Amino acid sequence: MKDLMEIIHNRKTIRRYQERPIEEDILRQVLDCAVQSPTAMNRQARKYTVLQDKMQMQRLEQAVQSALERNSYSFNNPAAFIFISVPRDLENGMADTSCAMQNMMLASTYLDLGSCWINQLKHCYDDPGVREILTDCHIPEDHVVYACLALGYPDQDPAPKEKSEWIEFL
Amino acid sequence: MKDLMEIIHNRKTIRRYQERPIEEDILRQVLDCAVQSPTAMNRQARKYTVLQDKMQMQRLEQAVQSALERNSYSFNNPAAFIFISVPRDLENGMADTSCAMQNMMLASTYLDLGSCWINQLKHCYDDPGVREILTDCHIPEDHVVYACLALGYPDQDPAPKEKSEWIEFL
Repeated sequence: MKDLMEIIHNRKTIRRYQERPIEEDILRQVLDCAVQSPTAMNRQARKYTVLQDKMQMQRLEQAVQSALERNSYSFNNPAAFIFISVPRDLENGMADTSCAMQNMMLASTYLDLGSCWINQLKHCYDDPGVREILTDCHIPEDHVVYACLALGYPDQDPAPKEKSEWIEFL
Repeated sequence: MKDLMEIIHNRKTIRRYQERPIEEDILRQVLDCAVQSPTAMNRQARKYTVLQDKMQMQRLEQAVQSALERNSYSFNNPAAFIFISVPRDLENGMADTSCAMQNMMLASTYLDLGSCWINQLKHCYDDPGVREILTDCHIPEDHVVYACLALGYPDQDPAPKEKSEWIEFL
């Protein structure tokens, strides 16, 4: 048992992971929390695709790097990489994806995993080189990818970031 | 202390609220959880505006109804109404808004509050009648509103919705 408030305050982005793989039942708990997050009009139209093959991850990194014309690009060698994909015409696809992402990041903290939101796919999911890998990963042709999660047992413990935003009571 | 996993599984949308107002320290806990959610490139550019004036809420309902050409429209009389607004040009504004929304919905469940995601503002924040009220509520002219949260002590206990989505391990 771990307190929600504590987890919300302790979550942070992790970008260095142990080589240790993640047990399947642990991954399923993370995914179950994603599924529990709300979807607009209760559509439940998201697909979660779990990639653990390091060669395939590297192929995807190369394709993203090339599509975005970067000099280098890396997911930082996570143990698992989760794609969330949604139908292209799903009106609230970005919101549905983000709620699932937030639940997965909290669940990861709960389960002593480290996670990092991967934002680059949303800029290049239709690039031919990227789409070819998405298809190899069984992501439907009519799906788009607004966000992915890199996941692994943490190999770093960065200080939490100070958070402060604008709040007004009327 | 309440378990994260339990809260994630128990969260549900509430659309009927008690008249009872929400204590300010409780509202601040909800907002603090929003602020703790991640923002792309750590921008922290969200503003949270808390409306508790029922007359102003009704004025906003009327403006939304008129902007969207509906026959009727209601927020269902919540005790509080929280706008999240972000700069119009914030590239990941929808994702940043959604992560804050998800944390607020979980925090509400934790604090025995009921909540409902209000999705209509994103379709009409630039309608002149709606914008006038946003301005009256001190929401900056260069901000847009992708989501709001209706909040109150619940006056209903609906059965949880069955959740099932497509998961594939490669």
